[in-house]
Amino acid sequence: MSETQRYSKRTEHVTGSAIRELFKLTAKPGVISFGGGNPSPAALPDDIVSDISRELVATNGKVLLQYGMTEGLPSLREALVPYIDQEFKFKTDVNSILPVTGSTQAFNLLLDAYTDPGDVILTENPTFLGATQAMRLHELQVVPVESDDEGLRMDALEEAIIKHHPRMLYTIPTFQNPTGVTLPLERRKKIAQLAEKYNVLVAEDDPYHSLRYTGQSLPCIKSFDQAGNVAFMGSFSKVISPGLRVGFLACDDPRLMRKCVICKQSDDLHTANLNQAIVEAYLRRGLLAPHVAATCQRYGAQMNCMLEALERMDGVQKFTRPEGGLFIFAWLREGVNATDQLMKAVDKGVAYVPGTYFYPDGGHDNTLRLNFSNADIPTIQRGMALLAEALKA
Amino acid sequence: MSETQRYSKRTEHVTGSAIRELFKLTAKPGVISFGGGNPSPAALPDDIVSDISRELVATNGKVLLQYGMTEGLPSLREALVPYIDQEFKFKTDVNSILPVTGSTQAFNLLLDAYTDPGDVILTENPTFLGATQAMRLHELQVVPVESDDEGLRMDALEEAIIKHHPRMLYTIPTFQNPTGVTLPLERRKKIAQLAEKYNVLVAEDDPYHSLRYTGQSLPCIKSFDQAGNVAFMGSFSKVISPGLRVGFLACDDPRLMRKCVICKQSDDLHTANLNQAIVEAYLRRGLLAPHVAATCQRYGAQMNCMLEALERMDGVQKFTRPEGGLFIFAWLREGVNATDQLMKAVDKGVAYVPGTYFYPDGGHDNTLRLNFSNADIPTIQRGMALLAEALKA
Repeated sequence: MSETQRYSKRTEHVTGSAIRELFKLTAKPGVISFGGGNPSPAALPDDIVSDISRELVATNGKVLLQYGMTEGLPSLREALVPYIDQEFKFKTDVNSILPVTGSTQAFNLLLDAYTDPGDVILTENPTFLGATQAMRLHELQVVPVESDDEGLRMDALEEAIIKHHPRMLYTIPTFQNPTGVTLPLERRKKIAQLAEKYNVLVAEDDPYHSLRYTGQSLPCIKSFDQAGNVAFMGSFSKVISPGLRVGFLACDDPRLMRKCVICKQSDDLHTANLNQAIVEAYLRRGLLAPHVAATCQRYGAQMNCMLEALERMDGVQKFTRPEGGLFIFAWLREGVNATDQLMKAVDKGVAYVPGTYFYPDGGHDNTLRLNFSNADIPTIQRGMALLAEALKA
Repeated sequence: MSETQRYSKRTEHVTGSAIRELFKLTAKPGVISFGGGNPSPAALPDDIVSDISRELVATNGKVLLQYGMTEGLPSLREALVPYIDQEFKFKTDVNSILPVTGSTQAFNLLLDAYTDPGDVILTENPTFLGATQAMRLHELQVVPVESDDEGLRMDALEEAIIKHHPRMLYTIPTFQNPTGVTLPLERRKKIAQLAEKYNVLVAEDDPYHSLRYTGQSLPCIKSFDQAGNVAFMGSFSKVISPGLRVGFLACDDPRLMRKCVICKQSDDLHTANLNQAIVEAYLRRGLLAPHVAATCQRYGAQMNCMLEALERMDGVQKFTRPEGGLFIFAWLREGVNATDQLMKAVDKGVAYVPGTYFYPDGGHDNTLRLNFSNADIPTIQRGMALLAEALKA
């Protein structure tokens, strides 16, 4: 290929996940990382998945190793109906559920099926970087909407809808990435109303929902959706295993669902059957609830440990107090640059992600995101002490 | 959503795989199907995969169940280098290999990374319907190039390149789908030369390569590629299991590879680790070669059985004599419509795919594709007898 080789326009200005690149820099031996969004190794159920895999392939291998339907394993779709009702508080049916290869794929399919280049998509500010990258690859105009301590501001959202005529709103209402903030009930209802009023599709991304350590579980936005304007994305990455790559899309518009299926045919034909069957076994055998309960106990203690360290930390102006999820978001003093500080922190032996990357328009240089799920309590204590030192230096 | 709801332009004229829809019609109890491209149940190694899955998750579950790199499991990429050298006859390195979620994904990533709407892509005529659908979802102009008994005609190819300035040529040079035809050595060399001369990217799709029942294995087009103009797609669907969804992309242009990785981040983040590790175990433990040998013996006998039946069959004007793969392509008498005949055949108890679906511009109504991998010999004998009856009726 020549030096002046042309590639696709859609990839021209997308350089890949800055976080993933940053991880390569900070992945030095011995550095404690609060940077990723990885589950704790202790929360990955290797013993159970090992046994289940053997059994499933031994008893049903001729089906699981064969081609499957793009629409997913029928028995998993059936098992998802009562699970969704119980966990996320909305009624659905097998035809409105599409198992996908991680909820990452669900969002990509929605963008494929519903948006054209140049369309406007609204997001929280800050928001999940992976989602922003998918938007840019679809050549969308990303318009962040002002958020406060409780998430998206409803006045700002309606103003943005009227001004920009967006095709879609992307939101993570529960234990948001990167802030950890949870949208209150009234705002959830309001979003469903605004979506119907202005015919905006809401892409509701709710991967952390079950990881609640305090407070009451809230029904998702989709549970208030009367007109089929909310597409819901669920994931088993945070509650079973991210390496299995299984999530689901739930959507009441049969035409949109059909288009997602068509796009999935060209994407990966279908999600691997064994992986779907492992998730199904977790749901049908009652394995998920006790595993989530144990994981919540673990992560809740780790979160509290990190919050306590933040309370004592000089140089930290403010931080969020999530009720669940994987992340705490913090503000250093005005004028302090969290990206510059990161290199000092890595020298001390600890890493995080500068918050600026999560703001579609950049800025907010004094912010950072801390993950508390991956490291155990002694490691969090050591890491936070190192961070305190780095911030003093 | 309202009745007049707008969806994405890219999905406007794509209605989904006609074959997959046809299968729903022909999937009546008791109907023998020569329609799909499924491996034989007997060739799906449920016993071995069951044991390997258990062992891999038990010994390395904390890695396999965790997030992985978009670039794939490093140990699988390492194992693919000598495998590719031995099987496909080209030298590569770990950085030029990307494990993917089935080779379906490899092609989708190439289209994402390399093409823009309106670009021209050349294909064989007929060609694989799944690939054509991916092209249409990328809003490409699909230009089929005349093919003869040995595959793509080189004069027609060069003419088409000069006339249409294509971005890409999509080709299945070995045991092509749907024809079963294999491109001779000299044409393979010529394609690599033309690709360099005119700066066309060749997407070489070679999923059936190892399923050869007679004749000598040929080096792939990529083995003659001097300038990095050939991107090679391999699959483990036909030689281990399609349900696992593991394939690979091999490509020497680091910028193109990087763009494919970026697109894959938004597609599914990474291919499921356990599934990659199962394929790696097949490669490293010498399990693949004996399994492929046994599968070739099985499929070769099934192919011969089907060819013998075709020789005796009234109403069949001509058919291909593949040296491997999964498919035979046949021509009914001029004026006979294979789609009309299909409904008669299904009434008799046998199904196939009308060939017209594989021609991007349609027509060729008297053609049909027969799969011989999925049914065993007694079933093929019965099915072909039923087909002979249906063609007489």
